[in-house]
Formats: sequence, structure tokens, C-alpha cells
Amino acid sequence: MVEDDSRKARWERRAELPLAITSMLFLAAYAVWVLAPGLPGTGRPACLGVLFTAWGVFAVDYAVRWRLSGQGAGFVRTHALDTLVLFLPLLRPLRLVRAYQAVQRRTGRPRLPLYARVSVYAGLSAVLLGFTGALAVYQQEHTAPDASIRTFGDALWWTCATLATVGYGDLVPVTPLGRAVAVGMMMCGLALLGAVTGSFSSWLLQLFAREGGDDAKPPEH
Amino acid sequence: MVEDDSRKARWERRAELPLAITSMLFLAAYAVWVLAPGLPGTGRPACLGVLFTAWGVFAVDYAVRWRLSGQGAGFVRTHALDTLVLFLPLLRPLRLVRAYQAVQRRTGRPRLPLYARVSVYAGLSAVLLGFTGALAVYQQEHTAPDASIRTFGDALWWTCATLATVGYGDLVPVTPLGRAVAVGMMMCGLALLGAVTGSFSSWLLQLFAREGGDDAKPPEH
Amino acid sequence: MVEDDSRKARWERRAELPLAITSMLFLAAYAVWVLAPGLPGTGRPACLGVLFTAWGVFAVDYAVRWRLSGQGAGFVRTHALDTLVLFLPLLRPLRLVRAYQAVQRRTGRPRLPLYARVSVYAGLSAVLLGFTGALAVYQQEHTAPDASIRTFGDALWWTCATLATVGYGDLVPVTPLGRAVAVGMMMCGLALLGAVTGSFSSWLLQLFAREGGDDAKPPEH
Amino acid sequence: MVEDDSRKARWERRAELPLAITSMLFLAAYAVWVLAPGLPGTGRPACLGVLFTAWGVFAVDYAVRWRLSGQGAGFVRTHALDTLVLFLPLLRPLRLVRAYQAVQRRTGRPRLPLYARVSVYAGLSAVLLGFTGALAVYQQEHTAPDASIRTFGDALWWTCATLATVGYGDLVPVTPLGRAVAVGMMMCGLALLGAVTGSFSSWLLQLFAREGGDDAKPPEH
Repeated sequence: MVEDDSRKARWERRAELPLAITSMLFLAAYAVWVLAPGLPGTGRPACLGVLFTAWGVFAVDYAVRWRLSGQGAGFVRTHALDTLVLFLPLLRPLRLVRAYQAVQRRTGRPRLPLYARVSVYAGLSAVLLGFTGALAVYQQEHTAPDASIRTFGDALWWTCATLATVGYGDLVPVTPLGRAVAVGMMMCGLALLGAVTGSFSSWLLQLFAREGGDDAKPPEH
Repeated sequence: MVEDDSRKARWERRAELPLAITSMLFLAAYAVWVLAPGLPGTGRPACLGVLFTAWGVFAVDYAVRWRLSGQGAGFVRTHALDTLVLFLPLLRPLRLVRAYQAVQRRTGRPRLPLYARVSVYAGLSAVLLGFTGALAVYQQEHTAPDASIRTFGDALWWTCATLATVGYGDLVPVTPLGRAVAVGMMMCGLALLGAVTGSFSSWLLQLFAREGGDDAKPPEH
Repeated sequence: MVEDDSRKARWERRAELPLAITSMLFLAAYAVWVLAPGLPGTGRPACLGVLFTAWGVFAVDYAVRWRLSGQGAGFVRTHALDTLVLFLPLLRPLRLVRAYQAVQRRTGRPRLPLYARVSVYAGLSAVLLGFTGALAVYQQEHTAPDASIRTFGDALWWTCATLATVGYGDLVPVTPLGRAVAVGMMMCGLALLGAVTGSFSSWLLQLFAREGGDDAKPPEH
Repeated sequence: MVEDDSRKARWERRAELPLAITSMLFLAAYAVWVLAPGLPGTGRPACLGVLFTAWGVFAVDYAVRWRLSGQGAGFVRTHALDTLVLFLPLLRPLRLVRAYQAVQRRTGRPRLPLYARVSVYAGLSAVLLGFTGALAVYQQEHTAPDASIRTFGDALWWTCATLATVGYGDLVPVTPLGRAVAVGMMMCGLALLGAVTGSFSSWLLQLFAREGGDDAKPPEH
């Protein structure tokens, strides 16, 4: 990428690390909020404080980038993903994948081949998304009267079965909001499957290109 | 596409928008018919009226195209898909995807790259098909004595689990017709999976072709 | 394919049609045997007669090809698939797909593009295999004391959910043999998924190759 | 692969066969340990002895390769997979796939085409991993009070449904450790799906490259 020196690009480069840290704090505070309902003293208000402050930081970043882009209302449309994340801040931690990528680039390590990078991104996204989704589903479900997902361990197990599109059905969300989160996670499961399959397929095709070589090893186990 | 100036092609271009609108009306009338069984007064006869009128429009379009094609009985075979849709008009709204494409082309917007278009088409098809399928399954199931799909929300949830090939099995159709619709939706789920995976794979391979460039970004989140 | 004029190749060309018909008879007799246990009079002995005669024809074909190949014991290994089919004649009807292909070639119709042919083969294989598998599972299961698959309709529904890898789990085989058949069908489900995805992916990549053209239509619905 | 003559490479070539045999012994001893809890006399101590000796051999191999690599602590990171296998020796048998490959290469048989090799590797891996996973899940589950997986046959059936991502959900692990193993197997199921799909896709694309030829056969059944 030729370094883009517009003010927007410079802002984005500088804001990357702080935003990544804020995202992690946001996720951590949400996890504590959901998993430790009996936090004594100022614990719960502190969590709420971190959540709202972090959201404020995201909002400021959005506003600044809108401003610097010099676009009018069109920004909302061309950055639809950013707009969505602004209203669903739980998706924000997924941007950590991009931060990870930026860090990799800066440390100047020899880049992994494309299929390996795609695997790493897909894996990281799956872990972040699975954890966030399990938290959200657990929050919705564990108090529902006829729920089958009752502990966070249950939620994690259900999440794995969903992201792998296995779907045992021993545990299922029963509340409308829990199901809505679940649908989002299924879509991610499909995309994850696509990423795994696609990168595997690409890797094989690259092997084909230099076929006949003895270095056509099977995938590492 | 070189603009085809045969009378059939001109008919198809002119009929596209009215047919798309008719399709939407058909789907809307079907939704109201299924979801609002207690519609007072002339509501339900009006729904039926719209359904039959719309179907009549589809039949006229089919007849005109048959006539203009100058083909004999062979038309039925070479246009097997159109023939199928004539008898299963619920599949008609899927053609909205094509109408969307035509609109995109006319407005002269810069075309999205192929993998993005495939994603958009697959997504649109999944939404239209999922909604139609959920309606049809709900209509068959919600009055069956031992049904587990009892509300339209249930039907939507079941649809998502089916299209993603997750298949929890907490809710399943039990009537023969409901199951027949479900089998059709599973086949669409497979095709959807193929579209997602295939376009992802193609996109990765294109990245490979210009490999080494720093712009090999991970998929947007 | 350059026409191979060895005696083995000529035998195979000549035997193709009779073997295809025998396969169909075998499948039909098996279906009647399983689905009509109360067949009066000579019905059931006749079924058995067809089954054993058909199997005899398969065995003769295997023996002749072994002989004509001029190979010794190595034939069993190099034709492992044929050997397997000899002992699991229910898989034989799958060769109808090849017969269909041969017929297509002889009639000299313009060949479909590769991805369409793969779709047709995958579809035909899925239908044949699903029907055969549903029969076999129904035969094993419907008399088991704690079975959930009790009618042939149930078996067909379970088959579709399995081949699409959806796996609701409302109906599952419970006998060891039924489960063994089910495992074979899951493997076919995976292969089917691979075929659908792979041909979709190939088709997209071909579109890529002539990218930019307006004829890059979305998949037909 | 140009034969690497470093001492590490020579060690690895020489150690391959003994390690493969040790892996098989390890798996066999584990299977006996799990499946025959009532082994009389010295049977169970002997199993334990084989398990620990085999693990010792793996540890020695790891240590020797670390030494010969001339790397410091970095070895642990660059050989993360080996390190993982050292602590999860049950994954070790998967290296049999590599040993199989080495044997194939030495016997100088004509190499199978790439897609066939990938299928063979994926199949072998699935069988080894499925068997090991079924053993581990059975060990965890069959004594749990509310378990649904009660016999080894159940565990095998559950394994097949999981690796194929079908996931009926008639049998599911309920203990935390059993679920942890299950999550590992789901990930393998995804990878397996990717391998099947990817190699199928690659094979189709190769057919495309020499398209039009009559030898574009459908996949063998």
C-alpha cells in the first residue's frame, strides 16, 4: 500500500492502536458485566462507565473520520460497515484483526503466505466473534424461563457447534434476541467455512501450479 | 451484452419492471394471506384477488414470450425454469434479483467486482427465498396437531438454521408438504454455501494473482 | 477420448446399456422388496429372482473384464471400486450416471459446459444414492423397537437432511447397520457439497477470466 | 525435495519409521486402556507402560531435534505444532499420514495426481482422528451420570456425524472435557470439508484447463 498522506489516512494510522486498546477494554468490560452480575461495590458502575466511555471513543473516531473525509451524507453509505459497528459496538473487537495485521506489517516480519494469513484472520475472527456472541447469547438466555443455555460454558459449547455449522441442537436459544444473535453467528459460520475452504482451495491450486515438485506436502497436522 | 433487438428481447426489457412490481405484490399478498388469517371485511378476498391477478400476469408474460420466441413445444423444455416458476409462482420473487441487477446496470454505477456481486446476489436470494420459504412452511405447519413450528418467528428461526445448514432440530416440519418445502430450502442452502465458498475462493485466487502486494487485505468485517 | 479398440474397451461399450438396464431392474426389485412386504403370490420370490439374476449379471461382467484385461490378481486392486460394487451391488445404480453421460455423448448434443455437467452428475448421483440409501436405512430401521424412522417418507426426509449436512436429528437411525449406511451417506453428502462448491467456484473463476464483460450473469434461479 | 543432509534431516529420516510404529503402539495401548477396563492380570499395567514409554520416545525425539536444530528457545515457537503434539500425544498418530507419504515416495510408485493425494491424506487423517477422538470422548463420557454417549459404538456414530458437520444431536457430549475434545473434532471437520471441497475444486479447474477434451469424466463412483 502506498502510504496515503491525506489527513484521514494519517488519523487512521494514529488512531489504530488506541482504538484497538479501547476495543479490548470494551469487550473486557462487557464480559465482566455479563459474567459477574454480583460484582460488589463500584464494580458494576465501573463496568458501565468503561462501556459508555469506549462507545464515546468509537463515536468520536467515526465523527472525525466523517469530517476528514470531506464527504457529506454519502459517508454513512460508503462506510456502511463502520456505521453498523457504531450501533453494534460489540462487533468492534473484530477490528482487532486489522490491528494485528498492521502490527505484523510494522514489525517487518517476513509475511506469511496468503493462505496462511487468511487462516490466521479467519481463526482470530472466529475466536473474537465466538466469544462476543457467546457472551451476548448467554446474557439473553440464562434468565429465560424455558432456556436450555444456562451457563457460560453452555453458551461457549453452543457457539462452537454453531460456528462449525454442526448444530447439535442439544442447546438452543429460545428468546427472540438470543435467536437474532444466533442468526448473525450462523452467517459468520458460513463465511468462516467459506474462508477455510477458499484458502485451502487456493493453496492447493498454488501447489498445482508448481506441480510435480516433491515439496507438495499434505497440510500440516 | 450486445443489446438484442429481437421482439422477444424488447418485450423482456419492457416487461421487467412491471413484472418485478407484480412479483413484490404477489409476495406481499401471500404474506398477508398467511400471516393475517383474521383479516376483517374484504381483506382476505382482496388478497386472493391480488394473488390470482399476479399469477395471471405471469401467465400472460409466459405466453407472450413463448409466442415471440417463435419456438414450438421446445420452448417449454428450453425454458424449463420459467415453466417451473409458472407453476410455483412463489419462486417468482427470486427474479427480483435479476431486476436489481438490471437497475444497477442502467444507473451506470461503477460495477462491483465479481465476488462482491455474487455475494450480493447470494444474499438477496437467501433473504427472498428464506422469507418465502418461511411463509410456506408456516402455512403448512402451524395448524398441524403435533407441529413444533407454531409461530412465524419460529418459522424464520428454523429457516435460518436450515439455510446455514446448521439444522439444530429444535423445530422441524412434520407435514409432508412442509417437509417438501424444507427439502427445497436445503438445496438452496447448499447452493448458498457453494456461492459463498466459491466467491470467497475466487476472490482469494485473484489476490494470489497480484500476490506480494501490500493491498492483500483480509475480508472486511 | 480416442476410441480404445482393445477387446476390453469394446466389451465395456457393448455391455454399457444392458448393465444400465440391469442396474435399474436391480434397484426397482430392491425397492419393491423393501416397500411391499405383503406382496401376494409370487411377487416376493420374483423380486428375489430379479435381485439374484441381476447380481449374477454384474458378476459375469466383472469376470469378463478381469479376463479381458489380461491382468492377474492385480485387477482386484486396480479396479478396487468395481470390486467394492460387486459386493455392495446397491451402489451399482450409481453407474447409471456414467451411462447417462455415454448416451449424451452418442446423441451428439452440444455438450453442456463443465460446471453444468458436474452439477447434473452431482444431482443425479445424489438422487440415486439418496433413494437407495433411504431404502436401505428404512429396511434396517422400521422394525427396530426404539426406531424413530418408521415410514419410507421418514427415511426420505432423514436422507435429505443428511445429504445436505443439515442433520436436524428429529429422526436418526438407531441400529448398527442403519448407522453404517448413514455414515456412507454422510460421506456422500460431503462429496456432494464439495462438488456443488467446487463447480460453483470453477464457474466463477471462468467468469473472472473473461471479467468485465456484461455477460457475467448471476446464477440462474 | 532436495535431500537435506543436515544432521537434523538425517535424524528425521531415520526416526520416521520407529516413530510411526511407536505412534501406532501408543494408539493401540490407549484403545485397549479405554475399551477394556476389566483387563485381567498385568494387562492394564502393561498398557500404561506402553503409553508412558511411547511418550518418552516422543519426548526424546523432540529433544534431539531441538538439539540438532541449533536453535534456542525459538525452536519451541517455530515448531509450535510439534510442541503441541508433545503435550497432546493423542494427536501423534496423525503423523502416520506423513509416514505413509514417505513410504509411498520410497517405493517409487508413480505418484497419484495432487487431488487424489489430498483426498487420501484427508481420508486417512479423518479416520485416525475420528478413531482417536471417539476413544477420548468415550473415555470422558461413558461414566458421566447424564451422558448420552454410553458405548464405543455410540461414540463412533457421534464422531461421524460431527466430522461430516451433520450433527444430529441425538448423542452429545455433556462433560467439559468431552466437549473440549468435541470442539477440536469440529475444527477438524471444517478442515476436512475444506480439503474435500478444495481438492474437488482444484480437480475441476484442472479439467477446465484442458476443457473440451472428451476425457472430462465425472468423479468415479
